[in-house]
Amino acid sequence: MSAAVVSLTTDFGLSDFDAGVLGGVILSIAPQARIAELTHQITPFNILEGAVILGRCAPYFPDGTIHVAVVDPGVGTARRGLAARLGRQYFIGPDNGLCTLMARQAAAEDLSCQYFSLDRPRYWLKDVTHVFHGRDIFAPAAAHLAAGLPIEEIGSRMENPVMLEFPEPTPTETGWRGKILHIDHFGNLTSNLNTTHLDRAIHEVHVCGKTITGMHATYGSAPPGNMIALIDDSGCLEIAVSQGSAENLLGAGIGTEVEVVFKESL
Amino acid sequence: MSAAVVSLTTDFGLSDFDAGVLGGVILSIAPQARIAELTHQITPFNILEGAVILGRCAPYFPDGTIHVAVVDPGVGTARRGLAARLGRQYFIGPDNGLCTLMARQAAAEDLSCQYFSLDRPRYWLKDVTHVFHGRDIFAPAAAHLAAGLPIEEIGSRMENPVMLEFPEPTPTETGWRGKILHIDHFGNLTSNLNTTHLDRAIHEVHVCGKTITGMHATYGSAPPGNMIALIDDSGCLEIAVSQGSAENLLGAGIGTEVEVVFKESL
Amino acid sequence: MSAAVVSLTTDFGLSDFDAGVLGGVILSIAPQARIAELTHQITPFNILEGAVILGRCAPYFPDGTIHVAVVDPGVGTARRGLAARLGRQYFIGPDNGLCTLMARQAAAEDLSCQYFSLDRPRYWLKDVTHVFHGRDIFAPAAAHLAAGLPIEEIGSRMENPVMLEFPEPTPTETGWRGKILHIDHFGNLTSNLNTTHLDRAIHEVHVCGKTITGMHATYGSAPPGNMIALIDDSGCLEIAVSQGSAENLLGAGIGTEVEVVFKESL
Repeated sequence: MSAAVVSLTTDFGLSDFDAGVLGGVILSIAPQARIAELTHQITPFNILEGAVILGRCAPYFPDGTIHVAVVDPGVGTARRGLAARLGRQYFIGPDNGLCTLMARQAAAEDLSCQYFSLDRPRYWLKDVTHVFHGRDIFAPAAAHLAAGLPIEEIGSRMENPVMLEFPEPTPTETGWRGKILHIDHFGNLTSNLNTTHLDRAIHEVHVCGKTITGMHATYGSAPPGNMIALIDDSGCLEIAVSQGSAENLLGAGIGTEVEVVFKESL
Repeated sequence: MSAAVVSLTTDFGLSDFDAGVLGGVILSIAPQARIAELTHQITPFNILEGAVILGRCAPYFPDGTIHVAVVDPGVGTARRGLAARLGRQYFIGPDNGLCTLMARQAAAEDLSCQYFSLDRPRYWLKDVTHVFHGRDIFAPAAAHLAAGLPIEEIGSRMENPVMLEFPEPTPTETGWRGKILHIDHFGNLTSNLNTTHLDRAIHEVHVCGKTITGMHATYGSAPPGNMIALIDDSGCLEIAVSQGSAENLLGAGIGTEVEVVFKESL
Repeated sequence: MSAAVVSLTTDFGLSDFDAGVLGGVILSIAPQARIAELTHQITPFNILEGAVILGRCAPYFPDGTIHVAVVDPGVGTARRGLAARLGRQYFIGPDNGLCTLMARQAAAEDLSCQYFSLDRPRYWLKDVTHVFHGRDIFAPAAAHLAAGLPIEEIGSRMENPVMLEFPEPTPTETGWRGKILHIDHFGNLTSNLNTTHLDRAIHEVHVCGKTITGMHATYGSAPPGNMIALIDDSGCLEIAVSQGSAENLLGAGIGTEVEVVFKESL
């Protein structure tokens, strides 16, 4: 049997010890665990960004992976700690909606979800602070799962975990209007318009007062510096600049509007 | 038996190959070692910051962990290379004080410390440069320990390793005066005042000309944007801004003075 | 037998999920693989920088290591995917020259190189996008090698992989003229002049209108703030500032000219 994979997603950054200490806690309890760092650079306190990253990554991890996510502005308040079985994988973190897309994907595959409150101190570190549940509660809980503890043992069954609302695209007379949900390292802009909306030939994309005509299949199919629209690696409409940054060129941000006009609407 | 954990703490940054090559060296000598990266973003040449991070992280790692730390402005000069058994864990790095807090913690637990000079070339890489002992001497030494070499074998016993002085708080007529020692990714300011100093009810905290009244237990217990004082995850007085950055709001830095006034002094 | 090491070198950055998802793909196919991250912070689209980093790191990794490199401005175009056996190690990535220095090193050791086109979809993920071959083709291919697939199975034998041209130093009447090829985290400038060129005593080094007299053996042998020339950890002429940044002090960049004057030329 191969050792359980524990993935980490946080807003701790990498310039401090917070991200690194999680590994120590996990390996102290589950020496065989395989730790995979998704990112520690979620925008501080941006729960939605954390949920998007988990939702996009989880399908590429093995069955049984335990995803620990800590974007936790409510640490130390009454918000609960959550362990969840979401289809074939697990989530550990604050009960603030970080697992929303993982839960939707399990539901889309007709797989069941169960939620447990992290309310049993025997699976925490001995000294729990009010300010660092990632280290004191979530990492130990994940490690106990990785070491073989059944999730039913880790806490009381709970209902109604917090789930996030995501902005939904709206239809227009000539196509769809959506929003930028994610900007990657290259400055590519990912929208909430995906292949379920874009089921007809696209004439134009409007964003930040600019018009992009037609769609490209790849970044490399346009000359460097040209702005293009394409379908990204998760089936969403993306605005990019070949070998450049659409974020910088357009001055776009999270929430920027994007409008698609279909050919047949003309 | 589970494989030894080797932790890495450096000021190499992540945009170059220096951090990554350490893993290659370690896995070449000790293929089963578990590598855990604490941080590669220590402020360049800041030995004290490296010592603080090691001191705060080491207690969360398994017994037997080998902590490699490379913040090494004196590389290639007469400063010695150091291997140390510090209680239940090990340290490998330059002899410049990086292990100061690990050694203090071992002493506080009545555990013994032994120091060895990395003076046996058979445990180095074959070609040792004057500029990269992290790769050429420290990583190989750590890997030999991880592969089972007794620390007594790795070099000659030595005495009087370099230890750092840390600024100590001073008592005032109404409480204590301390200093900011560490600033985390969120801009939270950690002082050298801890629960051993703060043994009475706190009336006010003064920092950068501002006054904070009373203490909070958690970040989330104040409205976003409010400045608060609280006890952090290692028992130290911390100045924070709920969902914001105290560093930016106050213009504070390492060494900024913090003064605590007790209620009973009024 | 110890598990295969898979190293990762990309320009994905660490603030998004792209780097992290590679680990999920690899562990899904090869649960025992040891993943070592060289860097994810190659300057976007800078193939030459990726080749330099691979060339400098690979010799420190175990025989059999599989180096995955993804700096891929041509993703989705007609550029091929490449698997290569380069002496005792392997390369997986786009066929754009990233493996140039690894191939030269194998040749310098009289070891053979074989190249294979990643043209067999059974070793890719099921759904391959036009925009993320790192996840969809290169990571799975590396994982299949790590899991024991002979490289001859992974694709058709191919010839004439793309190789990069590196700028070569030119001799002058009094020494050599070279260029800065790499700048590290500390702002140290590495040139393409190495010990094969610098076979006589050096009188002066000229760079950005400044003159450095003589050579130093270590960073620490000059007072803080002083600019020095030395031989770096890979045998190349480096310009550094003791405990400072030569990049900032000189305003130098990749491609900046460096001239060496030998003593005997005077």
